[in-house]
Amino acid sequence: MTTMDRTRTPETRVIDRSQHAAAEQADVIAAIEPLFSRIAPALPPVQFTGTTGARYNMGAGQPDPASLPRRELAETVASLLASDDGPAALMYGDAAGFLGLREVLAEKLKHWDHIEVTPEEFLVVNGSNHGLAVVAQAFVNPGEVAIVESPTFMGGLRPLRQLQARIEMVPLDEHGMRVDALEERLRSLRAAGTPAKLVYTIPNFHNPAGVDLSLDRRQRLAELAGEFDFVILEDDAYGELRFSGESLPSIFSLAPRGRVVRSATLSKILAAGLRVGYLIGAQEVLARLNALKLDGGASPFTNRVAARWLTAHHDEHVRRLIDIYRRKRDALIAGLESGFAPGESLKPQWHVPDGGFFLWLKLPEGVDPTTVSRAAANRGVAYVPGPAFFADGSGQEYLRLAWSMLSEDDLRTAGRLVAEAIHEAA
Amino acid sequence: MTTMDRTRTPETRVIDRSQHAAAEQADVIAAIEPLFSRIAPALPPVQFTGTTGARYNMGAGQPDPASLPRRELAETVASLLASDDGPAALMYGDAAGFLGLREVLAEKLKHWDHIEVTPEEFLVVNGSNHGLAVVAQAFVNPGEVAIVESPTFMGGLRPLRQLQARIEMVPLDEHGMRVDALEERLRSLRAAGTPAKLVYTIPNFHNPAGVDLSLDRRQRLAELAGEFDFVILEDDAYGELRFSGESLPSIFSLAPRGRVVRSATLSKILAAGLRVGYLIGAQEVLARLNALKLDGGASPFTNRVAARWLTAHHDEHVRRLIDIYRRKRDALIAGLESGFAPGESLKPQWHVPDGGFFLWLKLPEGVDPTTVSRAAANRGVAYVPGPAFFADGSGQEYLRLAWSMLSEDDLRTAGRLVAEAIHEAA
Repeated sequence: MTTMDRTRTPETRVIDRSQHAAAEQADVIAAIEPLFSRIAPALPPVQFTGTTGARYNMGAGQPDPASLPRRELAETVASLLASDDGPAALMYGDAAGFLGLREVLAEKLKHWDHIEVTPEEFLVVNGSNHGLAVVAQAFVNPGEVAIVESPTFMGGLRPLRQLQARIEMVPLDEHGMRVDALEERLRSLRAAGTPAKLVYTIPNFHNPAGVDLSLDRRQRLAELAGEFDFVILEDDAYGELRFSGESLPSIFSLAPRGRVVRSATLSKILAAGLRVGYLIGAQEVLARLNALKLDGGASPFTNRVAARWLTAHHDEHVRRLIDIYRRKRDALIAGLESGFAPGESLKPQWHVPDGGFFLWLKLPEGVDPTTVSRAAANRGVAYVPGPAFFADGSGQEYLRLAWSMLSEDDLRTAGRLVAEAIHEAA
Repeated sequence: MTTMDRTRTPETRVIDRSQHAAAEQADVIAAIEPLFSRIAPALPPVQFTGTTGARYNMGAGQPDPASLPRRELAETVASLLASDDGPAALMYGDAAGFLGLREVLAEKLKHWDHIEVTPEEFLVVNGSNHGLAVVAQAFVNPGEVAIVESPTFMGGLRPLRQLQARIEMVPLDEHGMRVDALEERLRSLRAAGTPAKLVYTIPNFHNPAGVDLSLDRRQRLAELAGEFDFVILEDDAYGELRFSGESLPSIFSLAPRGRVVRSATLSKILAAGLRVGYLIGAQEVLARLNALKLDGGASPFTNRVAARWLTAHHDEHVRRLIDIYRRKRDALIAGLESGFAPGESLKPQWHVPDGGFFLWLKLPEGVDPTTVSRAAANRGVAYVPGPAFFADGSGQEYLRLAWSMLSEDDLRTAGRLVAEAIHEAA
């Protein structure tokens, strides 16, 4: 880049920044502070990479690096760019996402998720986080009520906080969201004149709790949406990565079209780095969401790469991933188990998830979570402490371990080290 | 994709959508209509592709298809994915954008734009539209005042409308925004207790008007930001594509750091389809914007592709593009000129832009713009009518022609056909 120069501009045009010294800049920053809008948070940005310095990084839901289809993607890009469709991949495209991708995804949903949707019932977004934010923005005004599970995924929580929603929490048990508690809450909210507009749920291998929402609760939840007039945001980022247990129908399939927007992503089955997620819903609803999301449209390039890759490699690759992540789950659990004597009271509780990326531990009473975190960090182990997943910042006794990125050997070690950290903190 | 199946799920689980008939869906859509938030518009989505059916599509600022560096990009992707950095390109990354891209962009800005910024003073976004929306959201609450030029780019207007800002218009002349009129407006707004928080300006080859903001106006605008306490959103999507005239300092360089956020993009010099844009500003300001944009972070894949491509090809490619687009501008103008006799009263007025993608025509009085559009469409010619660029929907007598996508031959023809359409409408 050393040759870069615009010779027609005299060098004297370079502005000497030293005149705007640090002190002056600090004054300006202080002066503009009141100019920020109510939704611009003075918060650190989200870190999607976890604690990258940690030897055993179980913080973020990063995919398994070795499984990433690098050669397939390079070949896909080469053939795409050499094809007649190459120029379109590099120009502006359909704001709803590349039609060819929506067609392939409709086929995939039919065969893998037993969901019947047309390509017009898709909105392609820049990853799952983006999709969740767009849905929240489309339905929740400041001060209005949205209901989330307790615990829940921070990617669903964060846009609701930004919107200054009133966030209500409904507890989970081993069968997912307590829909009876939800109904009670919906009733009291309606009676108080503050009805819920949006209910956010993660029905498959809940992130972080790892549980599945039972079929009867899915059905009841779908009914409640009509009875209490709200929209369901169904977040299914991991659904394809089921290792065991029965695949249950999507809430999207159980409710009349229009009541549910379902969010999903290619981040877990192809590559998080492409930033391709998608929403499905009634065409009329997605049109509103599309008009709301002012991003210049989903990338015509990554959308086309994804469409071609899905057509050629999806089934085989997902089957391989299921095997990889199942072994990783088992390695982490084996490592944890190895660190506790049978029946030991210090052993945390967990539900063994039937899929996904995460194990959710509940520490026994009397074990200080902060001390565990510190003892784990001293051993090079990083994870996400529980309060990140609770709308009210509670849940100190929990922690989420991601088994997705580390190798099986590392997971066995990391599990053992977490057990050591718990013992040290007791 | 025919082999896709999840055998463990019985086929009986497929939900028969026919039970939810069209009538029922229409009922649901009507029922949820009141659930949409105030910012979810019942509007058609933005179309970034122009009228794609038109033989002579001068609607959108689509890049020249033949100039797109398809082979270079395929090689870049192949070497990236084969490198040690390949896995990181496919995983979650830094929400502020790939550091290596921000480093390359800092070098580029130094040499091409004479702007000194550190990699920490960048926020990578999903294209220019996304960046403009994030800045608007960060500073403007509903009902607060933002000032735009009249005319202005719809990508800057749209987020302000969505935010329900009070949008004030300041006129342009051949030297860009009338900064004297701006000052007057700022004074009366302050006196009325409704001060402006954001001023949006396009200083180089204004989109759509084609004019440059003069140096003394840039300096005065930078001063006014401090005097009247607002933030400047400087939109420079096309600045590198200067064919003629003198490059003037960025407003960003003329104001104390913190007062200006400058938006730019790789859409015009590399590929719109990658969706890579960037904001520069004070680090403290960008941190707020980063925390606000809930998209899971800019794509680590496209960011790395862009960084490698910029390092290897930027200078040569941009010089080539400048030549291509200059010829295209000249071809369109030649075509238009050929359709009018010397001194003919029906000839529209235009300013010859020193760069960019657009020619902005003002129709003579007595020529009905709607009839021109229809006559043009009958000839296969599409463009964007003026009112799209005015916050108050005025500007019927204007139309914007994009010379970027069509070939020189087609542009000569298209210019002549626009002249024909004007004659037909007179």
